[in-house]
Order: sequence, then structure tokens, then C-alpha cells
Amino acid sequence: MNRGLTAKGRATRQRIVAAASLLIREQGVAETTLDDVRVATATSKSQLFHYFPEGRSDILAAVAEYEAAQVLEAQQPYLGDLSTWESWQGWQKAVLDHYTELGRRCPLGSLTAELGKASPQARAIISALYDSWEAALVRGVEAVTSDGPEESRARARSILAAVQGGVVMLQGTGRTDYLEAALPAATGALRPVSA
Amino acid sequence: MNRGLTAKGRATRQRIVAAASLLIREQGVAETTLDDVRVATATSKSQLFHYFPEGRSDILAAVAEYEAAQVLEAQQPYLGDLSTWESWQGWQKAVLDHYTELGRRCPLGSLTAELGKASPQARAIISALYDSWEAALVRGVEAVTSDGPEESRARARSILAAVQGGVVMLQGTGRTDYLEAALPAATGALRPVSA
Repeated sequence: MNRGLTAKGRATRQRIVAAASLLIREQGVAETTLDDVRVATATSKSQLFHYFPEGRSDILAAVAEYEAAQVLEAQQPYLGDLSTWESWQGWQKAVLDHYTELGRRCPLGSLTAELGKASPQARAIISALYDSWEAALVRGVEAVTSDGPEESRARARSILAAVQGGVVMLQGTGRTDYLEAALPAATGALRPVSA
Repeated sequence: MNRGLTAKGRATRQRIVAAASLLIREQGVAETTLDDVRVATATSKSQLFHYFPEGRSDILAAVAEYEAAQVLEAQQPYLGDLSTWESWQGWQKAVLDHYTELGRRCPLGSLTAELGKASPQARAIISALYDSWEAALVRGVEAVTSDGPEESRARARSILAAVQGGVVMLQGTGRTDYLEAALPAATGALRPVSA
């Protein structure tokens, strides 16, 4: 993605992506034009096309990657070290708080829908997000159980599915009940007997 | 919805909805016009507006309700009687088979997206679907456990979230792994000790 850019170029590109992300969160992805991004970031058209040769779709893909990173960021510091039950509890709270705050909004979902949910770009971004997320959960499951690799992977996937399900139901109904039920159910087996 | 229609009228309306559903499954909701529905069902414009006064959005809402009913139908006969662990196992297989066959397609999701995911119509249809689904799962949980009403409801919601999560991840990635992991994890506590 950042091939051939200098450190300064990467910083500029990153600044444009962050600003475009804010803009899209505010006014919606369908309503955000290349000109809006240009004005908001005080960049010229040729600068924009230097960093995003395909124009709007390139920017949307970059913003989607940025939003995918935010999804993981919102779960830190817990997601990075799920080696204790306390951390798993903190993680559950962070997930619930994050999605309760977002409510029916889903920045990443809007972006991938605009890119085309079945597009290779959207699919690659979503798959990479799930893979990183799953890997962090697997490490956590392995840290607090004696499960083997297959079992840990299955457990991590079921926890990730619980989050996704609770979130998609929150977005469909505006209700947090499902996420609130799904998180403890999916992680209950990780709780130490003494806790 | 069917207020004021005779039995014959209801049957005609239902025939139009079923045909429109097929058409939309084949060619996509965005590409399906009122004229397409008229031609496919051999009805006149005035007939269509008799049954669907608001035109296209009324038809889409009716088809979305129809597709929501199909979601539950695909889980029968198990969903209607989850009073044994065998039935819970049959249900899991039915859910997995149904969504594996649909793959990345999601008829109901496309319809609610076209109606506007945040529209009162879409929200009412999705909420009603979740409520019926949850009620059936609650009855099943109560039948095979000694859990109280609150616990059963939470368990049912977590199972429903597991399905939704596995499905949304299947749609995002084309992979059934998540649903395959989520279903047994969410229902594992219902398995009798002897099974």
C-alpha cells in the first residue's frame, strides 16, 4: 500500500486518511466526494491522486483499513494481553462500551458496503481484520486454558462470532441485549473456577 | 397488512409476494422494478397498487417479511420443538446447511438494506424476526435445562447472536468456519452429561 513513499509521504498519506475518516464518519460515505476530502485536508487534486491513484475508491479502501485498525484499537490494551481473567473481563467491557457508543452506526460496514461487500478489496480488508482479531483471541484462550491449538482456535472463532452477532443485532435493533448476553456466554468457559 | 382483503385477495397478494421474492433472489433487489414484478406475476398496474398502495416499497417490505418467515422455516421442524438434544443437533445442522447454501447471499439483508437499514419498516421486520426466533430458542433452552427465565433468555440470545455472527462472517469472508465454531460453542452447555 505504501510502496515507494518516503517517511514524509507516508505521514501525509496517513493524515489524509485520518481526515477522510472523520469526514466520512460525520457526513456519511455516500455523501463524501473527492473534493470534500481535498478541501478538508487542504491538498491539491494532483497530490490526492499521487497518494491514491484510483481516486475515491482508493481513499475509501484506505479509510476502511484505517477503520479496521480502529476496531482493534478500541479493544486495547486488553486485546493485546488476554492472559488473565481480569483482562478478559476488561476486554468484554471495552467491546460493549465501544459498540454501545457507536450504536447503530458502523463506519467499517458503511465503507465496505460502498466499496461493494463482495468486492475483492472489501473482502481482503474484512478477512485481514478477522484474522488479526482471531489471532489475538487465540493467544488469550491459550493463555488461560489448557486447550490445544484446534480447540483454542474454535473457541476464539466462537468468541469473535459472538461479538459480530451481538453487534449486527445491535445495529439492526438498536438494542445492546444481545451483545450483553453473547459476551459472557462465549467467554464463560475461560473463567477460572475460583473467580 | 392484509386488512380488508378477502381470502382470494390474500391468496393473490401472497402469490405476488412469492413471485417477487423469487425474482429478487434471481436478479437482485436494486435491479427489480415494479414493472418486472407486474410482468412476472401477470398482474395489471392497478391490481398491484390495490395490494401494495405505496408501490415498490410496499412490495419490498412484504417480500422482506416473507423472507424473514423463510429464515425461520429453514430451521424447521427442529426450531419448533427443541425439547431434546437430538433436536438441538438437528437444528444446528439445518442452520449450517441453510447458510452454507446461501453462502454470501443474504436475501433479507439485501431487502432491509434497500428499504433503508435504519428505516422503521426494516427495523420492525428485523425485530419481529429476532423476537420469534428468540422465543423458540427460549422454549428449547427451558425444555432441556433447569435454567430460570432470565438465564434461559440470556442463553437464547447468546445462541441467536452466535448464529448471526457466524452468518455475517460467512457473508464477509465466504468462510463457514466461524458458524461451524460458534454453533457448538453456544449450545454446548445444553448437551446432557450422558450424550
